[in-house]
Amino acid sequence: MIDQSTICAISTAPGNGAIAIVRLSGADALTICDKVFTAASKKLIADQKANTVHFGTIQDGEEIIDEVLVSVFKAPHSYTGENSIEIACHGAPFIQYRILQVLLKNGARSANPGEYTQRAFLNGKMDLSQAEAVADLIASSSAAAHKVALQQMRGGFSNEIANLRGRLLNFISLIELELDFGEEDVEFADRTQLTNLVNEIQSLIQKLVNSFELGNVIKNGVPVAIVGNTNVGKSTLLNALLNEDRAIVSDIAGTTRDVIEDTINLGGITFRFIDTAGIRTTLDRIESMGIERTYSKMKQAQIVLLLIDADRDMENINDSISKVNQTIDRETQHLVVCINKIDLIPDPQGLAKRLTGLDVEDKIIFISAKQKQNIDSLTNELLKTVNMGAVNEQDVIVTNIRHFEALKNALGSIDRVNNGLEVNIPTDFLAQDIRECLHFLGEITGDISTDEVLGNIFKNFCIGK
Amino acid sequence: MIDQSTICAISTAPGNGAIAIVRLSGADALTICDKVFTAASKKLIADQKANTVHFGTIQDGEEIIDEVLVSVFKAPHSYTGENSIEIACHGAPFIQYRILQVLLKNGARSANPGEYTQRAFLNGKMDLSQAEAVADLIASSSAAAHKVALQQMRGGFSNEIANLRGRLLNFISLIELELDFGEEDVEFADRTQLTNLVNEIQSLIQKLVNSFELGNVIKNGVPVAIVGNTNVGKSTLLNALLNEDRAIVSDIAGTTRDVIEDTINLGGITFRFIDTAGIRTTLDRIESMGIERTYSKMKQAQIVLLLIDADRDMENINDSISKVNQTIDRETQHLVVCINKIDLIPDPQGLAKRLTGLDVEDKIIFISAKQKQNIDSLTNELLKTVNMGAVNEQDVIVTNIRHFEALKNALGSIDRVNNGLEVNIPTDFLAQDIRECLHFLGEITGDISTDEVLGNIFKNFCIGK
Repeated sequence: MIDQSTICAISTAPGNGAIAIVRLSGADALTICDKVFTAASKKLIADQKANTVHFGTIQDGEEIIDEVLVSVFKAPHSYTGENSIEIACHGAPFIQYRILQVLLKNGARSANPGEYTQRAFLNGKMDLSQAEAVADLIASSSAAAHKVALQQMRGGFSNEIANLRGRLLNFISLIELELDFGEEDVEFADRTQLTNLVNEIQSLIQKLVNSFELGNVIKNGVPVAIVGNTNVGKSTLLNALLNEDRAIVSDIAGTTRDVIEDTINLGGITFRFIDTAGIRTTLDRIESMGIERTYSKMKQAQIVLLLIDADRDMENINDSISKVNQTIDRETQHLVVCINKIDLIPDPQGLAKRLTGLDVEDKIIFISAKQKQNIDSLTNELLKTVNMGAVNEQDVIVTNIRHFEALKNALGSIDRVNNGLEVNIPTDFLAQDIRECLHFLGEITGDISTDEVLGNIFKNFCIGK
Repeated sequence: MIDQSTICAISTAPGNGAIAIVRLSGADALTICDKVFTAASKKLIADQKANTVHFGTIQDGEEIIDEVLVSVFKAPHSYTGENSIEIACHGAPFIQYRILQVLLKNGARSANPGEYTQRAFLNGKMDLSQAEAVADLIASSSAAAHKVALQQMRGGFSNEIANLRGRLLNFISLIELELDFGEEDVEFADRTQLTNLVNEIQSLIQKLVNSFELGNVIKNGVPVAIVGNTNVGKSTLLNALLNEDRAIVSDIAGTTRDVIEDTINLGGITFRFIDTAGIRTTLDRIESMGIERTYSKMKQAQIVLLLIDADRDMENINDSISKVNQTIDRETQHLVVCINKIDLIPDPQGLAKRLTGLDVEDKIIFISAKQKQNIDSLTNELLKTVNMGAVNEQDVIVTNIRHFEALKNALGSIDRVNNGLEVNIPTDFLAQDIRECLHFLGEITGDISTDEVLGNIFKNFCIGK
């Protein structure tokens, strides 16, 4: 049962803006609006066409609260699928709250976090994975995260899953028919066609499961631990990288950005630079200090960026590299060696030549963070460790751990179905595995969902969406 | 010459919200929109009717940036009086900037602060004082400030001034005609009618000038200095007052408010509680410490709130009161004596009786900040010092210092006109004074304005309005 009450919320970011939007959605949205809004035309909002905008005043009884624009949307052609109103008012928080109050007074109630999107899901305007993508889209702060969230919101892999699941549903009905006939050994479900479908499902799910590693990096950022001696130029380097990042908005006058500490977008990917304060003194003391915390930070990182002072630390470079190599897991972690302050030495080319043959997976990068020399080489090296191909090929990528878990479970079931088909297991066992697979796939799209699951998903939304 | 370029800006508050609005205004607004927006209906925005809303995607070339709603407004029926577009997108800052970028790329330019409202003024959609009220409205954070700003934006006193100025303009043309006739001693302008008009103008301007004291308090808040010994309960009292203030939003789930330190709205008026840290130790030491800063804080205050500990400071109460009385200007400043911690003493009534006859302008307030006893009496006492009558009577109130200065100047001129009429001064002197008055009144409505004045006014607006 969908809650029929009319909900309202401030939907724009909190604080002072030029304008703000207060939204109203539900069966009574138009009539509640007419109780508080007087159009300049004197016409009722309930009599207006859908998708039109009207100027007028919001009033609390006789008192005018603001001059506003009201946009009218009618069921089912709205975001929620219900009658909806958007009130664009002047952006003072005081005014926003007064408008919210007068709506509450006239029969609306405050929306819960994500309740607009939850209603859109319950009214069939989007499936569950699309609804989840809305929250990711609103939170996206890098090109890749934005792209993946948008793709998922616009259908992404869930369309494909829904399609395959629908075809699998047909087979399960045929197979259950077989079971009804019991001993008669009939076969309504063509086993060859079923095997083909199962292979198709297996291959899609496997691809999606594989994409999660990248998806997780896109959503949460690539953890990078910078390791190096004191004064090797860590913060100068971060500033140089940050500059590249900020270029994207520097040509737009007056744009403001939150102060970001060590999270930097490079080439559309978020990198999280981890504080390895524990090894601030000297790299040589890593082991002697025995600081568990530093080790664990390095172990959390996907990339360890070893920063070396070209003018001071070159003698021990071999030592430093092997110490890092001993600490990290070379299967899953990358070591990037970066020699800084090349502006301070007379012959960088000569130095580069002398350094061949070190135990480094790729070439060594020579930079001057201070002079902003060669920073793009370092950026490219960092990006190389992320499989950007998948993002750029418009492939679908799973970023949501709930989806990942469901897909892994679905993969287990579909593998069993496949094996079962090969060894010709009894039909009732086969049916059981198919039903399991259907269940897990249905969890992703929301065809199978519990109030608890929905509650967990939407509580993390912001209010107003 | 009005700038014909098409401007764009993010108009909602910065940061993450559910949705955000990017605005576009100018001659090419519709065609620029069509370069980046693809409606689900595939129709062009330029072909759509005014005041309609359209769903579709914003694209940068092939790449989809977001799914959005586009509202179409056409000249002259828009806020700016120009063709305008409002794009409602998902509220990630990343998306907002991408949309801004793609608009810039396609021929728009970044709006300057207040440029939308400046265009509305230049296109005759509002006069200058109304335009200024828009900024006040967006910044309003108390009921009174909101009410006064809204009134002014909706015409307020500027309509009346424009009307009187128009009538005075008629007279000046007649008087100038008299001057053209030179020696002939003709009188085209009826002196009795002129005198009546001048009286009318004088009385309006005087009323407006008088309203500024209240207007200033409404706009900037009433400064209150809390004076008292250590541990007298200053912050407990502020919290108790803050609670009253917060009641206005506490019934709205999930609303957020900026942390306000010592600015508290009581009964629709903002009170600014001034830190008198310099006298934190003991009141007795005010003079001995000789801290200029404390004195000057007390002198800045409109109200000095002397807070006394019922359980500890009663012996010296007479001393304390007379010390404050010696410091403040009793003509313009109010002393409110408040005895706190009455929950700690056995007989508050008895105490109250013993305290009659002290040198206090009004009654003494007995409270317990901790137990929230009698806080409303204190609130009422604070509000009594502000002449709320004027706010509630829907009288027009001047809050803007620019208007106040212009009104004072206009009052000077109109007084001279009046005196001149009484003593029958030569017509050319009379004309000079009338012209001056017309000039100052015109400054308020913007009939007389310079680029410099306009620049100063609009630079204080936020971007996007």
